[in-house]
Amino acid sequence: MITSTGNGKIKELVRLKKSAKERAKKGVFLVEGPKMFREIPHGLCLEVYGSEAFFLTQEGAAARKKAAADGIVPETVSDAVFQYLSDTQSPQGILAVVKQLGYGLKDLTDGDCPLMVILENLQDPGNLGTILRTAEAAGVTGILLSQGCADIYNPKVTRSTMGSIFRVPFVYTDDLKGAIARLKERGVRMLAAHLDGSIGLYEASFTAPAAILIGNESRGLTEETAALADQAIRIPMSGSVESLNAAVATAVCLFEARRQRSLPAQE
Amino acid sequence: MITSTGNGKIKELVRLKKSAKERAKKGVFLVEGPKMFREIPHGLCLEVYGSEAFFLTQEGAAARKKAAADGIVPETVSDAVFQYLSDTQSPQGILAVVKQLGYGLKDLTDGDCPLMVILENLQDPGNLGTILRTAEAAGVTGILLSQGCADIYNPKVTRSTMGSIFRVPFVYTDDLKGAIARLKERGVRMLAAHLDGSIGLYEASFTAPAAILIGNESRGLTEETAALADQAIRIPMSGSVESLNAAVATAVCLFEARRQRSLPAQE
Repeated sequence: MITSTGNGKIKELVRLKKSAKERAKKGVFLVEGPKMFREIPHGLCLEVYGSEAFFLTQEGAAARKKAAADGIVPETVSDAVFQYLSDTQSPQGILAVVKQLGYGLKDLTDGDCPLMVILENLQDPGNLGTILRTAEAAGVTGILLSQGCADIYNPKVTRSTMGSIFRVPFVYTDDLKGAIARLKERGVRMLAAHLDGSIGLYEASFTAPAAILIGNESRGLTEETAALADQAIRIPMSGSVESLNAAVATAVCLFEARRQRSLPAQE
Repeated sequence: MITSTGNGKIKELVRLKKSAKERAKKGVFLVEGPKMFREIPHGLCLEVYGSEAFFLTQEGAAARKKAAADGIVPETVSDAVFQYLSDTQSPQGILAVVKQLGYGLKDLTDGDCPLMVILENLQDPGNLGTILRTAEAAGVTGILLSQGCADIYNPKVTRSTMGSIFRVPFVYTDDLKGAIARLKERGVRMLAAHLDGSIGLYEASFTAPAAILIGNESRGLTEETAALADQAIRIPMSGSVESLNAAVATAVCLFEARRQRSLPAQE
């Protein structure tokens, strides 16, 4: 059992928790809590750490079994060290090191009629997690992120996806323009959510393969990216509201797409 | 100029920042940052505090003018004390003590065809702020909150409303059942967002006076409150998502209402 925060493995876990660079270098990320642990797909889990108290519970026994299926013997750490490791105020006693997910651009457009989200420089980890969760619920086939977005493997993001991180394909790109061009070649229409959009959300059509472009929380899309859109869509707003929260705007667009796609096909 | 965190006024401001009870007792709340300060309606502002640096800016001069219109001479505090006072990591130099807003139940249903949100035990301050902002944009006439909800005057909520707190009427009630009964008597249909709803979101009608009932982030609506609904509405979801974030679910329902209300009237 590990009882000291000075332990080399504990130090490495803290580096993985705090540093996106360290996560990228090692090609792994951390998954915390029994609920998220259960969602880890077979074969991706590399190391498992649990608190003393956790392994005495039924949930702890189930976690040992799941780890064993991946050939892993969990490491027990003292409750105090687990508290130190945890990213939450009320740690739930289990933490895993998991392989990062490796998708390619073509994974984002699977299915008969792709529906994508493209995020440019989205900064807030909570927003990013919420967007992943909402995207899965709306039937999104994949998410493309500019390199300037928050790190999807940040523990706060991972947690707020509620497991969607394992189910929605996503790709980071340092060439957003090039990636958008390739998607357009494959017939994906680019629809930008934009405060000055030329068409109202409910007049736009989402029934063909489409990607919804969402920009940074305070600055929106860059002009360069907005110019790549086939259409700029305006969410109608009452009152004196300047803009919606980025995750809310994404949700409203995605569920309008979902609504249109659930209607019986018209003549 | 106030230069000590031991100053009586500073101590009182910190109490107002931290304690919902203190805010309720004094009937006031805090508003921070130049953007939110500009939104304060005439006659509600009671005290204004600014950092030394802030009052040297153009924005600072404008703030002095706005304060003067309410007969207030702003108090200058040292930059260090302002940092101590502030609820944010990058303080923007201005803070006001503002009268709490006093609405009654009838203020929530103004207009030809009321659209309301009813929140039961919503706990997350960020969600509450986002719901207010989204509600204003969707044309909501008012929000009813159970006493178990987060405090709308919590600085985190106030800030995340982006000013909507001054524009969307809201009422807290310790008798949610009674308030719902009174709204029903006035012809407001109660539509509960519910994972086991009997009707899909896009089959439901929002064109009559309506209220959307939203429950707690993890437990949803209490059975007692769900039983008061005229209809339980299910947001269609793909994938393995168990539920949507509460603010996202509210947004998706409200904008569907908005969409339906923007359609030309049918025969």
